[in-house]
Amino acid sequence: MGILVVGSVAFDSVQTPFGRADEALGGSATYFSTSASFFTDVRLVAVVGEDFPDEHIDGLKGRGIDVEGLKKAPGKTFRWKGRYDYDLNQAHTLETHLNVFSSFDPHLPEAYKDTPYVFLANIDPGLQLKVLDQVKKPKFVACDTMNFWIEGKPDALRKLLKRVDLFVINEGEARQLANEASLVRAARKIQKDGPRILIIKRGEYGSVMFSGGSYFCAPAYPLEEVFDPTGAGDTFAGGVMGYLANTGDAVEANLRKAIIFGSVMASFNVEAFSLERLNALRLEEIRARYSEFKRLTHFDDL
Amino acid sequence: MGILVVGSVAFDSVQTPFGRADEALGGSATYFSTSASFFTDVRLVAVVGEDFPDEHIDGLKGRGIDVEGLKKAPGKTFRWKGRYDYDLNQAHTLETHLNVFSSFDPHLPEAYKDTPYVFLANIDPGLQLKVLDQVKKPKFVACDTMNFWIEGKPDALRKLLKRVDLFVINEGEARQLANEASLVRAARKIQKDGPRILIIKRGEYGSVMFSGGSYFCAPAYPLEEVFDPTGAGDTFAGGVMGYLANTGDAVEANLRKAIIFGSVMASFNVEAFSLERLNALRLEEIRARYSEFKRLTHFDDL
Repeated sequence: MGILVVGSVAFDSVQTPFGRADEALGGSATYFSTSASFFTDVRLVAVVGEDFPDEHIDGLKGRGIDVEGLKKAPGKTFRWKGRYDYDLNQAHTLETHLNVFSSFDPHLPEAYKDTPYVFLANIDPGLQLKVLDQVKKPKFVACDTMNFWIEGKPDALRKLLKRVDLFVINEGEARQLANEASLVRAARKIQKDGPRILIIKRGEYGSVMFSGGSYFCAPAYPLEEVFDPTGAGDTFAGGVMGYLANTGDAVEANLRKAIIFGSVMASFNVEAFSLERLNALRLEEIRARYSEFKRLTHFDDL
Repeated sequence: MGILVVGSVAFDSVQTPFGRADEALGGSATYFSTSASFFTDVRLVAVVGEDFPDEHIDGLKGRGIDVEGLKKAPGKTFRWKGRYDYDLNQAHTLETHLNVFSSFDPHLPEAYKDTPYVFLANIDPGLQLKVLDQVKKPKFVACDTMNFWIEGKPDALRKLLKRVDLFVINEGEARQLANEASLVRAARKIQKDGPRILIIKRGEYGSVMFSGGSYFCAPAYPLEEVFDPTGAGDTFAGGVMGYLANTGDAVEANLRKAIIFGSVMASFNVEAFSLERLNALRLEEIRARYSEFKRLTHFDDL
């Protein structure tokens, strides 16, 4: 089954302890759709400026991503500049230029309106709702958000959360949203407001899922170096949703496998700048690393 | 097979967001031996003051712990006073009174000298070495340490680490000891200096084991509230070493099960102050929670 994703397509300038990339292709929708494209058909909704080169669009098309919903608007493409120090869990934003994204008014192409799986990447919850309103009968809806919207648009976010099946969020933001120091309590509180399933991202500590009353804990892959963490969260979400859409059935066993596929995709993504590693990735590598995750978490029954 | 443990027996005064305990029984050797006693015979080496009540000694005996090596010395018992705020990973020490512990000079009873499993809890590495020197042919030796000794006694610690099979350490301290931001690199570096097996404790994120070239990742149990984290690390180590001594064979499969038993024991311990929960614990509860750990980490093969 296909996935629709709405989010940013951007140019990122990133410094890490291991090097730097200037004006490299980035953005939540770019990472998500590239990652998900390994598992299923992806329809991309975003806006770029007149400065966005055709080669990047061709690159997305080359991965089979449907770019009918990727609009070119007068002005410049969204730009983000950031730095990571040795604590690679923490991005320090140096500059954000929304550019064409500041007047982004998403209208779905007709062909997109019956997409069964929907991922609303981290943008204004008002825009997330606007996109969701245009999908006729979504089968499974997921969204991300961040502290900026938790503080600035709490009402729209609350409204959105009542309509999603799966909420993907950082650990600190989950605590902030629920106003709870205990993560377990925070999760239960957020689930009450809507999403049946909650996946909490913990950076180098992996992720945890609360689905209904059950709990699942997934590790991160033990890398010697995280070269560039930019896009890890969206790449993770792309693997999760891509696998779920591939199965067409979000039962517990598939959700758990989906989280491992998401972790696998994120672990590759952080090995290089921008989408370099994902674009060079082969299916055999994904399958091999999935099996490695199995080995690094296995222990015998009593 | 039996275990010998050397460490502290103390009175702890602890404040947490959920309450307080004054002059409650604590200390690394107390938590360790209580936890390990569910799995194997334990021989305790420590010192207390004349103020230490017989009822506590009887309590340890009642668990089958051999207290021949627990000496009473003139003076007062070691006391620790600490506070935990909402970040329960971080203890704030308010007062430390070593008292009789400051002149602790451990001499093993004859009957202890052939103990096959040895745990050197977090004390001066000089004392840890002194105890180890008295054990005739230890089969499996493990130790813990802390930032205070990493900074203050690096040479003795280095000497000790060449003689241990298993090193149990906090994440931040592992990075400090190896002077490496990457945990994987830090672990490889520490393994080069001696211990074949390294277990790194990550508080609410669980633990990871590096053994030879392999890697194992264990979650923490998802508790709504951590009531009092005091002793969690030593209780964990007690479960790990207790199970290993029980099997008599530290192969990879047993090491992994041991870490889960350690996590189970620690998860119970933090549910109440002092040793309240451990002293009330039943074997069926341990087995049931082990199975829960299995469920919360399970995912299907590819």
